[in-house]
Amino acid sequence: MQLGMIGLGRMGANLVRRLQRAGHECVVYDVNKDAVAALAAEGATGTTTLEEFAAALSTPRAAWVMVPAGLTGDTVFKLADLFEPGDIIIDGGNSYYRDDVDRAKALHAKGLHYVDVGTSGGVFGLERGFCLMIGGEPEVVSHLEPLFATIAPGIGTAERTPGRSGEPTPAEQGYLHCGPPGAGHFVKMVHNGIEYGMMAAFAEGLGVLNKANIGKALAGEHDAETSPLTHPEYYQYDLDLPAITEVWRRGSVVASWLLDLTAAALVEDPELAQFGGRVSDSGEGRWTVLAAVEEGVPAHVLTASLYERFSSRGEALYSDKILSAMRKQFGGHSEKPAS
Amino acid sequence: MQLGMIGLGRMGANLVRRLQRAGHECVVYDVNKDAVAALAAEGATGTTTLEEFAAALSTPRAAWVMVPAGLTGDTVFKLADLFEPGDIIIDGGNSYYRDDVDRAKALHAKGLHYVDVGTSGGVFGLERGFCLMIGGEPEVVSHLEPLFATIAPGIGTAERTPGRSGEPTPAEQGYLHCGPPGAGHFVKMVHNGIEYGMMAAFAEGLGVLNKANIGKALAGEHDAETSPLTHPEYYQYDLDLPAITEVWRRGSVVASWLLDLTAAALVEDPELAQFGGRVSDSGEGRWTVLAAVEEGVPAHVLTASLYERFSSRGEALYSDKILSAMRKQFGGHSEKPAS
Amino acid sequence: MQLGMIGLGRMGANLVRRLQRAGHECVVYDVNKDAVAALAAEGATGTTTLEEFAAALSTPRAAWVMVPAGLTGDTVFKLADLFEPGDIIIDGGNSYYRDDVDRAKALHAKGLHYVDVGTSGGVFGLERGFCLMIGGEPEVVSHLEPLFATIAPGIGTAERTPGRSGEPTPAEQGYLHCGPPGAGHFVKMVHNGIEYGMMAAFAEGLGVLNKANIGKALAGEHDAETSPLTHPEYYQYDLDLPAITEVWRRGSVVASWLLDLTAAALVEDPELAQFGGRVSDSGEGRWTVLAAVEEGVPAHVLTASLYERFSSRGEALYSDKILSAMRKQFGGHSEKPAS
Amino acid sequence: MQLGMIGLGRMGANLVRRLQRAGHECVVYDVNKDAVAALAAEGATGTTTLEEFAAALSTPRAAWVMVPAGLTGDTVFKLADLFEPGDIIIDGGNSYYRDDVDRAKALHAKGLHYVDVGTSGGVFGLERGFCLMIGGEPEVVSHLEPLFATIAPGIGTAERTPGRSGEPTPAEQGYLHCGPPGAGHFVKMVHNGIEYGMMAAFAEGLGVLNKANIGKALAGEHDAETSPLTHPEYYQYDLDLPAITEVWRRGSVVASWLLDLTAAALVEDPELAQFGGRVSDSGEGRWTVLAAVEEGVPAHVLTASLYERFSSRGEALYSDKILSAMRKQFGGHSEKPAS
Repeated sequence: MQLGMIGLGRMGANLVRRLQRAGHECVVYDVNKDAVAALAAEGATGTTTLEEFAAALSTPRAAWVMVPAGLTGDTVFKLADLFEPGDIIIDGGNSYYRDDVDRAKALHAKGLHYVDVGTSGGVFGLERGFCLMIGGEPEVVSHLEPLFATIAPGIGTAERTPGRSGEPTPAEQGYLHCGPPGAGHFVKMVHNGIEYGMMAAFAEGLGVLNKANIGKALAGEHDAETSPLTHPEYYQYDLDLPAITEVWRRGSVVASWLLDLTAAALVEDPELAQFGGRVSDSGEGRWTVLAAVEEGVPAHVLTASLYERFSSRGEALYSDKILSAMRKQFGGHSEKPAS
Repeated sequence: MQLGMIGLGRMGANLVRRLQRAGHECVVYDVNKDAVAALAAEGATGTTTLEEFAAALSTPRAAWVMVPAGLTGDTVFKLADLFEPGDIIIDGGNSYYRDDVDRAKALHAKGLHYVDVGTSGGVFGLERGFCLMIGGEPEVVSHLEPLFATIAPGIGTAERTPGRSGEPTPAEQGYLHCGPPGAGHFVKMVHNGIEYGMMAAFAEGLGVLNKANIGKALAGEHDAETSPLTHPEYYQYDLDLPAITEVWRRGSVVASWLLDLTAAALVEDPELAQFGGRVSDSGEGRWTVLAAVEEGVPAHVLTASLYERFSSRGEALYSDKILSAMRKQFGGHSEKPAS
Repeated sequence: MQLGMIGLGRMGANLVRRLQRAGHECVVYDVNKDAVAALAAEGATGTTTLEEFAAALSTPRAAWVMVPAGLTGDTVFKLADLFEPGDIIIDGGNSYYRDDVDRAKALHAKGLHYVDVGTSGGVFGLERGFCLMIGGEPEVVSHLEPLFATIAPGIGTAERTPGRSGEPTPAEQGYLHCGPPGAGHFVKMVHNGIEYGMMAAFAEGLGVLNKANIGKALAGEHDAETSPLTHPEYYQYDLDLPAITEVWRRGSVVASWLLDLTAAALVEDPELAQFGGRVSDSGEGRWTVLAAVEEGVPAHVLTASLYERFSSRGEALYSDKILSAMRKQFGGHSEKPAS
Repeated sequence: MQLGMIGLGRMGANLVRRLQRAGHECVVYDVNKDAVAALAAEGATGTTTLEEFAAALSTPRAAWVMVPAGLTGDTVFKLADLFEPGDIIIDGGNSYYRDDVDRAKALHAKGLHYVDVGTSGGVFGLERGFCLMIGGEPEVVSHLEPLFATIAPGIGTAERTPGRSGEPTPAEQGYLHCGPPGAGHFVKMVHNGIEYGMMAAFAEGLGVLNKANIGKALAGEHDAETSPLTHPEYYQYDLDLPAITEVWRRGSVVASWLLDLTAAALVEDPELAQFGGRVSDSGEGRWTVLAAVEEGVPAHVLTASLYERFSSRGEALYSDKILSAMRKQFGGHSEKPAS
């Protein structure tokens, strides 16, 4: 089956490669001509303008847009101007699902179809396959199913869930039509929200392990504001975190892909010396919290994990100064210098 | 190698079975005579008193205590009275690591050795192997290593971590000597703290997905206290949670054993009709928070996940009544009845 | 000065009374004719249609809209159709500040002025005065200043802040022009967010005091899943919460109006028997969290206090069932019945 | 009445002054001879050794210990060695209430009485009076009541709570016998926990106000990882925080002593330029969380406010590095430099 791909960054290029390996035919476009050339050399049809890209696709066209979040809307609408009724535009980026709802409505008015695909898999997707969460009209999603089945990891990549039998469902192969437009990115959004929470769970737990020797350090601190650690004898452990994350990979309840990655990171750089601790967040975590609030569903963990990232970038500084200012007012406390 | 096992509940019995399958010899004891008989029928040496148990073990004795947390201390000290210098008592239960520190000291005074083993693996451990986190004196832990290597899952149960090579370490086989007495249960404690956080991340995320159709329900609510949902059109999704948890199992970032279990639970009971939502907590989650606080390490996520469990059992009720009482005072607001 | 008031609920009626006591002239309207009659009996000009209301006001008209949040938009735009260029519409309700921004723009196109006023003070405002946070064009806000100065509490209601001197600012009198349209409701929104956090701080603290006798109850609980309380001897206090909230009112750091109200509530109903613990939330708390997330500012406390309200109404139930389902899968744990 | 005071720091000295102004007689001791001399000059009986201090007190002695938390235990027991049956030792510092329980038991064995007094009021207590939360034997607390009544603020410092009438209770005068030994510090501990939560509520809310102009700054940021702010037009406010905290002081729901202090701090230093944002915590906040966890009572807000202080001092750094390490593993994301 033929697919057009716009945006040949890491994700877009790997999707094309995975499709071509399975015999699908790809037409590609990127503002970066080198990226186009690289994939053309691997068998794709390279194009240098959107017009050329549109012309190179047979109708009904199917084009996958994989560009930075801030540019997706423009790209979709430019493409819509070049496409004809019956054509399909797929947004595979990290779009806010609300934009999908709006775009699908706008495209529908022109007779075009809009499909949103939330894609998880990171840099490992080329080999491991990508998990696909899809929103759109049922018949349109069905039409594209050969592509989704190829991009997804396939049933063999995990043991079958007890209680499931018979013909494997698409979900068991790693792709799922979640609902009408926006549903794919909604599910992907919450997936990332969960990811933030899981990551924070590991990060905090390892933080507690990392300080398990604090009883060695604090002996004898006495001042009016600091209470001594009540039982330093219980905090005397120098723990080997690369080994601990490794041992948990086998047989423990926290076994997970994120743990595998953490163990790998700690083998590579046991002191994490290359990191300053400024953690980015990229939209989905925030939108998950917005959805929780609007739905009235408590999400303490997902929200705290998002706020930890804000704090890691210094965004709590003003609030912290307010706290110090209050303390100085009521207690005459001056800030203690960094030790 | 010979091991004595005290406490033949689910975990203790499965440990014995896993050891015997590998050719180790087990002496067993439980207050429940049927439990003893069942394992004796599978080849273990059954005993009916602690004295008989002690007598049946060859010296230096090695006895694994696997009884409810509240009874572990008593059992350890009774055993210590029957044992001789050089013997080893292993606490494999869910003990507070501080008790290990204290017990090890007490036993050391009698010439006995104390080893604490945090054990993860749940009901699947018999087949899957148990992940073992061990605290104790190095030479004593070494002496017991054949047992640990048998109980642990073994290296084959996960792909090797990139960057590791050569002879597999014990951690790669699923058991780890973490440090002096208490270190095993300390690491297991934090493991469970992380587990709470990961579980809450999934639970909250699924909670957000579950309410993604709230826009269908809330149309037209108008009163002085409730703001209408600003954009009901963005909350129109009826999502299939059994399918969503299934699709995430392949290729996504949140792939994990806990997700596998969640997917299985939702296939078995898609409406979760058998559950009332009262979630227990069993010590380790609490102790992890206590450690975070004493170490001065922020643990928003681990703590929130613990508190969610308290709330699930109604433990926020008094606080909630206070809130309603305040609202009535300043705004004349009466509580709205459950809808 | 003349003011029109639409919406004669508790807040609207008290604003009219406070203005009339100071000699201002009020024209009033409400769909409830009895409410109109009641205020007409106190000297206001009652009207029975919006047309009559508009006709009764001299130009440039100034009309204050104080209706339920869900109806404010409609009311503003109906009024706008009846008003003439130069007239002023004041939204004094609990509007989302974003609606203010949009409405101000729409009214501006018709030559009308829009002013948003966040109002705090609750049922005590008639006597105590209302704290006013105002957004709008500077000259329009200036024009209305005599009204604001009357509604606000006045400088005498709190001791002067050290460091302030000279002519009292409007802020010191209890009203403040915060910025362009929406700024008033933005500041009021965050005020309520803080209010949620403060309320939760008291509610949680009193919750901890309320359970300070838990050591008396838990002796002897032993099962595989529950750890006994390590030191029941430290939880033997039966505390008198009405007295404690009273003692804090004088000289302590937590002295506050919310504490005064809590102390009053506990005198009135020491067991809080009239409350079921279902706590409402009314928009501003949610919007504050949305703003924190969009601004990238961590707001753990404000958010947790909002989520506690959701939980108090049972909104965590689905998540809690997921947790129980997971626990059953990995540990074979069944839920414990409510005790 | 006579009282001995050990520890003449800010708090101890002000207590002595407040007592002497009311005609009580004070015997004072401190390791710092200048501090002794200063109070002796104001009429106190100065002493230079604990022995001299004990000898200068008439029996039954009453001695108030007001020294740094880490030194209280030693001081109490040294004093106990010098005192006689029937004498009273009062711990007025920031002790952990568990230490009170243990010390009271130890002193009781010697026929001595132990009273714990949690004291709130900060640097303003000399004029404003101190709020006193007291634990101890009823008859001993009664005996000391003239001292407590003098130190406390008195009923006139707040309006009477509606519903209270008749002879003012001690709570209405600002001191309260909360229960047996430890109860005073338990209540003070939770008071401080609430204080942390209230402070954080203000700090976070002001943080949100402070960034209300973020829409001006972020226009045009586009990259693969950062989503643009969806609606920059709603974040265009440059807010005047000194004025906003001032306006809230009159008539608003968040009116409180902490708000008064915040308003004062912002008048003094509107940019908070003197603060680096490293916020100390001094024991009670931690102990409150420990109590919440042991009692099984959810305390999201109190805990989050404690953790924010840890984070302000860099204690989340290791966890944040773990997050960055994970992100690099799965997404190839490098950290973005500080902007």
